[in-house]
Amino acid sequence: MTTTAKQTTAVSKEQLLKHWQGHRNLTRRVIEAFPEKELFEFSIGGMRPFAKLVAELLAIGGPALKGIVEQDERPYNEAAFEATSKKELLKLWDTATKTINTYYRQIPEAGFQKIVNLFGQYAFPVYENIFYFIDNEIHHRAQGYVYLRALGITPPFFWERGK
Amino acid sequence: MTTTAKQTTAVSKEQLLKHWQGHRNLTRRVIEAFPEKELFEFSIGGMRPFAKLVAELLAIGGPALKGIVEQDERPYNEAAFEATSKKELLKLWDTATKTINTYYRQIPEAGFQKIVNLFGQYAFPVYENIFYFIDNEIHHRAQGYVYLRALGITPPFFWERGK
Repeated sequence: MTTTAKQTTAVSKEQLLKHWQGHRNLTRRVIEAFPEKELFEFSIGGMRPFAKLVAELLAIGGPALKGIVEQDERPYNEAAFEATSKKELLKLWDTATKTINTYYRQIPEAGFQKIVNLFGQYAFPVYENIFYFIDNEIHHRAQGYVYLRALGITPPFFWERGK
Repeated sequence: MTTTAKQTTAVSKEQLLKHWQGHRNLTRRVIEAFPEKELFEFSIGGMRPFAKLVAELLAIGGPALKGIVEQDERPYNEAAFEATSKKELLKLWDTATKTINTYYRQIPEAGFQKIVNLFGQYAFPVYENIFYFIDNEIHHRAQGYVYLRALGITPPFFWERGK
């Protein structure tokens, strides 16, 4: 076992953004795969319908990046992302894609190891917060995969991330 | 928008391992949360029971890291990880934890950006392959979360990664 005190490069800033946006592109295709009604209503085991899970992802992505860059500790708020149609939800998704790109690129390289108190309550290094956003998206999107399978719909391939 | 040709440090090697093992610890608790019978039999929408998904994760983690370090292109093989009891599955899980730690630490820092032809068929940079292992685990574990909810069992908190 070797340990070093200094930070070493395993993953770069641009690689992490590309990875995240690849996942976001896949999530977009999962939203598209849902029938309109089931997107807002279908559920298993008392869990939220997929549109509600997507609202959570939207309430994190753009606002979180803006909060990190502007050192803004405004609390987490899902209300602005409660769409009522698939079309509206996809539009919110595409806006978030641009917002994330814009703010992400303003985080300086050294900023990924700095602690930011996200939404006034999650004080972690920036890279850990960004890992959390991605992980949380994969986690909730996988619920969407199960919903689609239960509805008899084949979801997109998990490994396809391109447009 | 700022772009640089050189690689910059967003996430270090040790941070990525800690992140992965944190996820693996959560997955272990999801395995534990399943009743013995349902772990091997319960399914939704024609998908695999959770023990089968765990066998996939086991067939990736340790063997993949070993393959990366030893430049061994032996094909993916799930057969060695088909447990018949929860106890046996957890034992395989704990063995994999040690195997991953051992081999991960043998990957040199510069090795994360190198392309390795994993299992003789996935030629990607090492960091991308490791992201894939983690993402795939989150994805399948989330199926396990839905199975547990459908069984009326409360799964562990998604954000708890410690032992």
